[in-house]
Amino acid sequence: MKRTAAILILAATLFVPSSPAANSTPVLAPELRSTVEALREKAFAGTRALDWVRSLIDSSGPRLAGSPGDRASIAWGLDTLKALGFANVRAEKVTVPFWERGVETGEVTAPYPHKLFLTALGGSVPTPGGGIEAEVLEVASLDELAAKKESDVRGKIVFFNRRMRRSAEGSGYGDAVTVRGAGASRAAKLGATGVLIRSIGTDSNRTPHTGSLRYEQGVGKIPGAAVSNPDADLLERLVREGKPVRVRFTLGCRDRGVAESANVVGEIPGVGSPEQIVLLACHRDSWDLGEGAIDDGAGCGVVIEAARLVAAVTPRPRRTIRVVLFANEENGLAGGRAYPKDHADELARHVAALESDMGGGRPIGFSWNAGPSAEPLVGEIAALLAPLGGGDVSSKGAGGADISRLVLAGVPLFSVRQDASRYFDWHHTANDTLDKIDRNELDSMTAAVAVFAYVAASVPEPFERIPAERRVLPRF
Amino acid sequence: MKRTAAILILAATLFVPSSPAANSTPVLAPELRSTVEALREKAFAGTRALDWVRSLIDSSGPRLAGSPGDRASIAWGLDTLKALGFANVRAEKVTVPFWERGVETGEVTAPYPHKLFLTALGGSVPTPGGGIEAEVLEVASLDELAAKKESDVRGKIVFFNRRMRRSAEGSGYGDAVTVRGAGASRAAKLGATGVLIRSIGTDSNRTPHTGSLRYEQGVGKIPGAAVSNPDADLLERLVREGKPVRVRFTLGCRDRGVAESANVVGEIPGVGSPEQIVLLACHRDSWDLGEGAIDDGAGCGVVIEAARLVAAVTPRPRRTIRVVLFANEENGLAGGRAYPKDHADELARHVAALESDMGGGRPIGFSWNAGPSAEPLVGEIAALLAPLGGGDVSSKGAGGADISRLVLAGVPLFSVRQDASRYFDWHHTANDTLDKIDRNELDSMTAAVAVFAYVAASVPEPFERIPAERRVLPRF
Repeated sequence: MKRTAAILILAATLFVPSSPAANSTPVLAPELRSTVEALREKAFAGTRALDWVRSLIDSSGPRLAGSPGDRASIAWGLDTLKALGFANVRAEKVTVPFWERGVETGEVTAPYPHKLFLTALGGSVPTPGGGIEAEVLEVASLDELAAKKESDVRGKIVFFNRRMRRSAEGSGYGDAVTVRGAGASRAAKLGATGVLIRSIGTDSNRTPHTGSLRYEQGVGKIPGAAVSNPDADLLERLVREGKPVRVRFTLGCRDRGVAESANVVGEIPGVGSPEQIVLLACHRDSWDLGEGAIDDGAGCGVVIEAARLVAAVTPRPRRTIRVVLFANEENGLAGGRAYPKDHADELARHVAALESDMGGGRPIGFSWNAGPSAEPLVGEIAALLAPLGGGDVSSKGAGGADISRLVLAGVPLFSVRQDASRYFDWHHTANDTLDKIDRNELDSMTAAVAVFAYVAASVPEPFERIPAERRVLPRF
Repeated sequence: MKRTAAILILAATLFVPSSPAANSTPVLAPELRSTVEALREKAFAGTRALDWVRSLIDSSGPRLAGSPGDRASIAWGLDTLKALGFANVRAEKVTVPFWERGVETGEVTAPYPHKLFLTALGGSVPTPGGGIEAEVLEVASLDELAAKKESDVRGKIVFFNRRMRRSAEGSGYGDAVTVRGAGASRAAKLGATGVLIRSIGTDSNRTPHTGSLRYEQGVGKIPGAAVSNPDADLLERLVREGKPVRVRFTLGCRDRGVAESANVVGEIPGVGSPEQIVLLACHRDSWDLGEGAIDDGAGCGVVIEAARLVAAVTPRPRRTIRVVLFANEENGLAGGRAYPKDHADELARHVAALESDMGGGRPIGFSWNAGPSAEPLVGEIAALLAPLGGGDVSSKGAGGADISRLVLAGVPLFSVRQDASRYFDWHHTANDTLDKIDRNELDSMTAAVAVFAYVAASVPEPFERIPAERRVLPRF
């Protein structure tokens, strides 16, 4: 075989999607298939998803639970869903934690003075007004800290220095993020006065990444902050020079108790079986440092637009598509906890749920968590998504934080996986701004979600529910 | 001709450097050529340039003229040059302006509240303590502002919104930067209360780019700041929505008069004609926001290491190589003004000068400003640089701010042009940190400067000096 021919054959193998349904009986009626293909092509040619993202963030700004931006975005959500013709538009009240960032300063005081770019981890206690200053103890992991003697840790600022890997699906996040949640209490147990972590992010900008920490009950609370990656590099270099490195930092954040917020809901009523629900989710809140464009303005734009596009299709799906813009995903998940309680009597009629919360990147696959008999239908959906890049069903991990509790009721969960190669450059930083979203990629994602939603809401037989033995909450 | 063959021939044309000396009598002796080629290959294989950059920035931090970091880096320069065996190491006193940044806040107050990431332009007057708040008037250029009626500008904050183009040699900078220098006074003449500019930079980070403004004499001084590119995008979107956009900002910067600083000098004495000088320049100072790694720690690493490498070669060059780490390039050029005065009696013996001040990128060309008879020698040097990427002599623009005044004495000026595609992502921002330098690219640049220095200091006949009619200062 000649090299050229080999290359052509390889290209054909790579670029012509194989249909998972090819070897089994098609489960989609030909009319439904052609309707969905037309919907897909229309959406792929251009959607208004980015317009909704822009409108959300320009009118609301950052939207941390309890903040003025959080409130503004509830009004935005109600106005927007009504203006777009959604039915049953409403705000479902949710009580959320209200934590507020304050003054933040950081500096290396020895062996040489340097400014540090750092930011409080969400939920951190403040430092005293004058800040804390101590020698830095660098460790790579919770395990390395656990192996230290208390006398080595006492009075120190523990610096967790582990770099996050870049990957297409952001899988490095899970590996790196444990120190953010647990580091402060682990260090406090050994007598540390504060914790700094290398930002959980793949960039090299002076824009530190926030995110929640969690204090263990019964352990003294010490302040925790993330330094930017270049600042972590600096600390690493200074520590490895061998002289004692001292750091001072100040965090003026405070716990303001609770506030009122809301899950914002709107529906495209089904024609035939309107009591059955396909849930499309995103979260309306964001961290406070940036504008929340990729996290999760993008997801809100995607699910609103996907539902709007489905509503314009003839015939209308038999089931209701319910869009929920969840409250407080970032620092409490109060919206995701409230929803299954508020809708307990409806959960058996939730036939599918999908959350869009991985930025504005293009589809790279489709994941599912349902009963085994759903596989042929899942395969057909994936085949429909293949021209958008979403045909790969080899990965697991369907769901999303806000819809994760629906697993307990057996609601089938789905994800359109996205290219997240750059997501963690900007995630939870000041850099989470509108320019980070590529309109074409967002349109591809919107098309994929619209395809999923139309099929899920139209097929005669819904997905088999998650079997009882797999109705287990994932850990966040 | 077959397509494949055409591609191969094209590749040969592109990648095999043509020797400008091919059609003329070689001006380099074979022994000199082979010595320089060996030097080039040794340097290309790896240098210590990045070590010197690291050492400078880790021990000194930001080095704005008059600041503690400026002082620390004088000590660093003296210590380092002595430790590396340079001769006649000294600090030549320079009086520099001392401007200091203070508190900086920015926000959009209408139509929707947003935080703005902004930073004072160097030399700006402060705002009143409570800041200034006014409606924004967006203009694209000085010309567009000039066409406005005074009644449209009075009381407003003028927002200069012009995006810098990315290019390999950073040519977009000159086009975009005029508003930074002149915008404040132009706007003040029409009654504006303040000026914001879109950052002169090619990135999309929340890290605004500072740089000097210049007030016109006799015009009231109004505060000027740069907003980051994503913030400029936001202002642009809000303005174009049509509702009045109001901004408040606070600058706590202050003019602290003058301070003492120094040009730090060290020499590799020539063997034969030590009174003749080849000057290798960089600037030791930096803006205050970042660490000054690319601007201009990189240049200091390059010229120090190039000189050190030359000093290790047998035979030693006949002329002296003088390394000067200039003071105050960023906001006054006091070092570059002082040098020709301090060394007036030596300028006729300066046979060549080269400044490295375009970051850590690899060589992409060689430029010169000398008498016409220098061309064959320039061509030979370019041919020696070609394997490093520096063989292209088609562009003009040799020099550098600190050595620019040497043109008045006819001193031949040279530049190794560098790939600056990403330089203006980080230039004058907090993001100017060590991680932005690629060691291999910096080594290539160091090799190129070493080649130039060795040849310039060794050839029997120096370059013809700049003709009298071209001894004109460039504008900065």
